[in-house]
Amino acid sequence: MTLDEARAKLALANRIIAHEGVLDAFGHVSMRHPSDPNRYLLPRSRSPELVEPSDILEFTLDSEPVTPPTVLLYGERVIHGCIYQARPDVNAVCHHHARAVMPFCISGVPLQPVSHLGATMGAMVPFWDQRDEFGDTTLIVAKPEEGRSLARALGPYWMVLMRRHGATVAGQTLEQMVFRAIYSCRNAEMQREAQALGGVSPLTPKEAELAGAFNLQPKPIGRAREYWSTRVQRAAA
Amino acid sequence: MTLDEARAKLALANRIIAHEGVLDAFGHVSMRHPSDPNRYLLPRSRSPELVEPSDILEFTLDSEPVTPPTVLLYGERVIHGCIYQARPDVNAVCHHHARAVMPFCISGVPLQPVSHLGATMGAMVPFWDQRDEFGDTTLIVAKPEEGRSLARALGPYWMVLMRRHGATVAGQTLEQMVFRAIYSCRNAEMQREAQALGGVSPLTPKEAELAGAFNLQPKPIGRAREYWSTRVQRAAA
Amino acid sequence: MTLDEARAKLALANRIIAHEGVLDAFGHVSMRHPSDPNRYLLPRSRSPELVEPSDILEFTLDSEPVTPPTVLLYGERVIHGCIYQARPDVNAVCHHHARAVMPFCISGVPLQPVSHLGATMGAMVPFWDQRDEFGDTTLIVAKPEEGRSLARALGPYWMVLMRRHGATVAGQTLEQMVFRAIYSCRNAEMQREAQALGGVSPLTPKEAELAGAFNLQPKPIGRAREYWSTRVQRAAA
Amino acid sequence: MTLDEARAKLALANRIIAHEGVLDAFGHVSMRHPSDPNRYLLPRSRSPELVEPSDILEFTLDSEPVTPPTVLLYGERVIHGCIYQARPDVNAVCHHHARAVMPFCISGVPLQPVSHLGATMGAMVPFWDQRDEFGDTTLIVAKPEEGRSLARALGPYWMVLMRRHGATVAGQTLEQMVFRAIYSCRNAEMQREAQALGGVSPLTPKEAELAGAFNLQPKPIGRAREYWSTRVQRAAA
Repeated sequence: MTLDEARAKLALANRIIAHEGVLDAFGHVSMRHPSDPNRYLLPRSRSPELVEPSDILEFTLDSEPVTPPTVLLYGERVIHGCIYQARPDVNAVCHHHARAVMPFCISGVPLQPVSHLGATMGAMVPFWDQRDEFGDTTLIVAKPEEGRSLARALGPYWMVLMRRHGATVAGQTLEQMVFRAIYSCRNAEMQREAQALGGVSPLTPKEAELAGAFNLQPKPIGRAREYWSTRVQRAAA
Repeated sequence: MTLDEARAKLALANRIIAHEGVLDAFGHVSMRHPSDPNRYLLPRSRSPELVEPSDILEFTLDSEPVTPPTVLLYGERVIHGCIYQARPDVNAVCHHHARAVMPFCISGVPLQPVSHLGATMGAMVPFWDQRDEFGDTTLIVAKPEEGRSLARALGPYWMVLMRRHGATVAGQTLEQMVFRAIYSCRNAEMQREAQALGGVSPLTPKEAELAGAFNLQPKPIGRAREYWSTRVQRAAA
Repeated sequence: MTLDEARAKLALANRIIAHEGVLDAFGHVSMRHPSDPNRYLLPRSRSPELVEPSDILEFTLDSEPVTPPTVLLYGERVIHGCIYQARPDVNAVCHHHARAVMPFCISGVPLQPVSHLGATMGAMVPFWDQRDEFGDTTLIVAKPEEGRSLARALGPYWMVLMRRHGATVAGQTLEQMVFRAIYSCRNAEMQREAQALGGVSPLTPKEAELAGAFNLQPKPIGRAREYWSTRVQRAAA
Repeated sequence: MTLDEARAKLALANRIIAHEGVLDAFGHVSMRHPSDPNRYLLPRSRSPELVEPSDILEFTLDSEPVTPPTVLLYGERVIHGCIYQARPDVNAVCHHHARAVMPFCISGVPLQPVSHLGATMGAMVPFWDQRDEFGDTTLIVAKPEEGRSLARALGPYWMVLMRRHGATVAGQTLEQMVFRAIYSCRNAEMQREAQALGGVSPLTPKEAELAGAFNLQPKPIGRAREYWSTRVQRAAA
């Protein structure tokens, strides 16, 4: 994949995740550089739904811009850089505040896979509370030590809930991460409504493992990509 | 009805059910072949909202493609084939994971007709739990024995809920099935919200039978068809 | 008002109420004939969002078409005719199954005015249960005695909830009825969510009377009319 | 800022707040005159989503029009005038009845900051009940003494909930107020859903202060402005 192809794919991923209701004015989506694992690509500070390929800049894993910037940068870049440093297997990251997950972030109720599509988030979604380590803050993850703490909380998993703030989702590929970001939100909505209706009977850990792996294969991923891409293109037309 | 007419009707049914919020990237809609009851029509693997008449292929009731395929096929074809085998009176099938029904699939609370329009799903909607017979799986209904088990759970009814997965809806005609798929989801939303507000007073079995039969007559079916067709055409324009 | 003007206004009212989410494929909207109080105007059987002025027919108060029809007619015309017979002060009627009111129709929880805009439905919204007088039916209000029973349940009020079915809303003018139909649904949504959050503190009967009368004056009615008309025109463009 | 620039900005703010679901047919948005602190700008009586720069008129802080009006005026102008009189630091006001906040207005449950973006409403959102001081009314805030009572309830805060009616939001600048009006509604939705899911763990007062101040800086404000402006322009195109 060339850098230009990567920029085009990353811009589309930004717009898809936003159009499916996971991102609004805030949140951000990155991918590791396609040929240099010590760099990552992230848009300039702009709402994801508006991101164009030309908005996408290169950063070191310390979250410093490779070229002196002439535009505003996201303040929470360390979320991305610290996860790429801690997890060589991660090649894409999304940080968001989707309405779907916020009731879990606010109440502290654990997110659990309750459907085969939701299982792509993994059987375990850990919590991180910035307050535990850093006390009263703006809740913005801006300092390297805050980013490293969040990456530690993510650990070997694929999604971490941030108390009173939002979520961060990772993937081995950009497309896997897009699928996980969207279907973990759908899972959250279903889990909340099932809980209110009569209680939750989640997938077993083995079911979550099998279903999660199944859905992240090229065929389901490709089918969802065609659907989401068409929707975002129709909305823009 | 010619095969070309059937393909056009089935493609439109795919897009209508998707546009009304029952289907998203996943799920699928089929009909029995208009002149050969030992075959059925189903699109190639593609999100239902995007299906065109040219995407629709022929399958035997063992869910094998009649012509060697050059495109990807849905992995859960046995849902359709096994129901057509078990139920000669069924001529259309939809499998979906609508948000409306998932709280019932996850909690195990039975779906009940709570309005005259919802009564088209029937007074009884059985549950099927893949885990009972097959243990830990991907939850994908891919093997013939899984399809046959689901068809047995459907029994003589018109809709079956699949634990932690979704629902499958059948009909004597394509149009009856479309009506049932959409209004069973509306019924599910109303039932969930009524339960939270103050409890559910369902239709009597006799009311469900009378109202269900009334709504599936040509006049209500035709009125809804004009409405849904116009909506999906306007959205595409 | 000429008959042509009345047809144009009634067609627009159909489309507005549908576009604001009160009506879907089903339900219907009528007005009393502008110059003959013994007749009323109602569209042919068609989803309200699709109604054109040329769809609108004349009926006697016995709900018989004035001219032998060449098109399909709504099966529940007696709802309209029986209310116009019983209530000379009523000049417009809407029957609907809005998702907003259905949790009340299903649970039996009374609808109460909880905001000044909702107060336009009146302090009292009675219930009618077709089962009480007629036993097991299709729930369709098709017979004159069923229509008369519903009109008796409405009594001197402006809105009646129909158990497991929907609601019927009346008005002194078409515009008052449109306002009431839409804001009673908004009130229902708010009441349900407030109940779940912490309980409902309704308007006093005097507040409901004062606020209801205030909102039905020409200035608020006119402001809402411009807003809803513009929305429905933009959506059609 | 010239008066023409102020009119253009205020018209856009009206349309943005409406398009993001805070305002519907009713509610209104004003700003203090850019060069004369003893006057304020407010549209003629019209739904905010339809407001054009040419609709915007000048009023004294007693809420009298500076020029004899030839158009209808909002009946609740005193909400704006009385707050501008009582709070020299306030330069923009929005009064609304958003569905998001109404469950709090109806139940009396306090609104609390539960996310960093919601913290822009402030740690404390007081309640005002018109009934306490004025008994049974239309709930319309039309008299100067009603406006002054509401301004006293707002006190030194930035948002006040009005029992069974809605909310009023203030800001040091128009853009801060727009951000607060939208994200306080998002906070309300999240708080309600978290409460139902498992309870609310709010921000500490210090976190609310730090996060609120952070989000009202030019960079987050500007990012959200580009997003909301683009959305409202796309919807109008």
